[in-house]
Amino acid sequence: MQKIVVIGGGTGSYTILRGLKNHNIELTAIVSMMDSGGSTGRLRDEFGFLPQGDVRRCLLALSPDTGMLRKLFEYRFSRGVGLNGHNLGNLFLTALRDITGREEEAIREAAKILNIKGRVLPVTTTNCQLGAILENNQVVVGETNIDIPRHDPELKIKKLFLVPKPRAYNETIKAILAADKIIIGPGDLFTSVIPNLLVGGVVPAIKKSKAKKVYVCNIMTKYGETTGFKASDFVNELEKYLGKDVLNYLVCNNKKPSKALLEDYQKEKAEYVEPDLVSKKIRAVKTDLLDNIDLARHNPEKLARTIMKL
Amino acid sequence: MQKIVVIGGGTGSYTILRGLKNHNIELTAIVSMMDSGGSTGRLRDEFGFLPQGDVRRCLLALSPDTGMLRKLFEYRFSRGVGLNGHNLGNLFLTALRDITGREEEAIREAAKILNIKGRVLPVTTTNCQLGAILENNQVVVGETNIDIPRHDPELKIKKLFLVPKPRAYNETIKAILAADKIIIGPGDLFTSVIPNLLVGGVVPAIKKSKAKKVYVCNIMTKYGETTGFKASDFVNELEKYLGKDVLNYLVCNNKKPSKALLEDYQKEKAEYVEPDLVSKKIRAVKTDLLDNIDLARHNPEKLARTIMKL
Repeated sequence: MQKIVVIGGGTGSYTILRGLKNHNIELTAIVSMMDSGGSTGRLRDEFGFLPQGDVRRCLLALSPDTGMLRKLFEYRFSRGVGLNGHNLGNLFLTALRDITGREEEAIREAAKILNIKGRVLPVTTTNCQLGAILENNQVVVGETNIDIPRHDPELKIKKLFLVPKPRAYNETIKAILAADKIIIGPGDLFTSVIPNLLVGGVVPAIKKSKAKKVYVCNIMTKYGETTGFKASDFVNELEKYLGKDVLNYLVCNNKKPSKALLEDYQKEKAEYVEPDLVSKKIRAVKTDLLDNIDLARHNPEKLARTIMKL
Repeated sequence: MQKIVVIGGGTGSYTILRGLKNHNIELTAIVSMMDSGGSTGRLRDEFGFLPQGDVRRCLLALSPDTGMLRKLFEYRFSRGVGLNGHNLGNLFLTALRDITGREEEAIREAAKILNIKGRVLPVTTTNCQLGAILENNQVVVGETNIDIPRHDPELKIKKLFLVPKPRAYNETIKAILAADKIIIGPGDLFTSVIPNLLVGGVVPAIKKSKAKKVYVCNIMTKYGETTGFKASDFVNELEKYLGKDVLNYLVCNNKKPSKALLEDYQKEKAEYVEPDLVSKKIRAVKTDLLDNIDLARHNPEKLARTIMKL
């Protein structure tokens, strides 16, 4: 059976995993562990465990589409002193972490309870923070401070780093080495995708793996992260961390969202990513990947079918 | 199949249900919904839902003895702003109540997820408070204020009441009417057992039911509630609410706990309940029901076997 590994985190991973889980493959989600915002951030601060948010989203993506446990895992408290804003899935993972004593064990138990298709692996089990050096050499630490820019969003991100520098989880490295296809993205380039590549051992494993290496480019830019980026800019930025001549494919949407939708996104200064030319060494697959919803997002089925055909 | 209904709440119900679930019977737990302390009380205040604590304990008692979901349902946070002291099972039930919109539906869904043996039914789905009138006519409102006496514990409880006066849940009445055996207790007489009898429709249904009616007396008294009570006092007090000539059986432990254990209990001013004589109309079954543990509690298996034989 074809082994597909998806590297990312956040909404992008959620989308692609929801599509891929319906195909007959061995599916592994490798998830960034640097989230520091919202309910996850509060729990991280108070319990000292690794963040649950991205893991939770990947588990949800791979769980059956119906059922009360899924609803519970998604549930967010909107009342209650100290509970307001907390996600029950995060509390569930926090308790599992406390009971089992290990993040990877907590994820495994949650996967069993939720009866997921495939596996979810943390990129690392070391508690670390994401940092960014901006073009003016200002340093911003904390994923949420980069994701929801608490810095001048006009300043470009020059370099990302992790502190302390973590080693990859050994099962994650094994999964990368054994993969037939490694899918990087989609997702926020600096806060969901690249953080995985900063973890010690990940890039060498990707290079060593005989898998086809695929980058799925985002549909829209993100203000303060990828302002003004075309597809080639996403690839160039990624290659700063991954190295040249590693990617075999670029998968890129070429269907422009409606004018009305683009105007909506203008409020957040997000723009359509032009599917421009990239290096001839990378095979660009440009196709309609747009979902028929009120968001300029990938359609899980269209994206999964495109990946399967590579 | 024999239909057994257990009426109570708290630790007493937990104990007897754990024993009965291993027998081939149709088992229904009817649970008081007046808890107002601890994690349950905080959630009750903040969400306005019915209390989860007693329901949670009964669900746990009837769930398989192993498995991670059970551990999660039992888990209590010992850290976290606003989370500290909260029980994950309570949060789980709160979320289910919010998702489904109804207490009875939330309990049913939790029962399915936990794969319990039998059923758990709330005695009522009306949000009400337990109140007590003491012998000096002082009025104490709130289950936790009576349970952990925030009044002079030397004063006897003269009368209990519920405010507002609730009607019983219709499925609960049906279960009582259809039962072959109705087991009242064990458990705190004034805060777990009698509150069920105050709910409109419960006592008439017990009287109407052709079931054998059994009272399981506690092993130890409780300071501020049943100080100085013998078995006959428990029965007399119960009959104030249930009526005379309703009970067919009294099940009572006659094995005195060890001297060391009794000394431990002396710290809480709790004493061994003497299995004295009761009205000849009630058949008293006095036997060794003591558990071989560090607490003067019923042994679930001994108690269940005794019940099965009646």
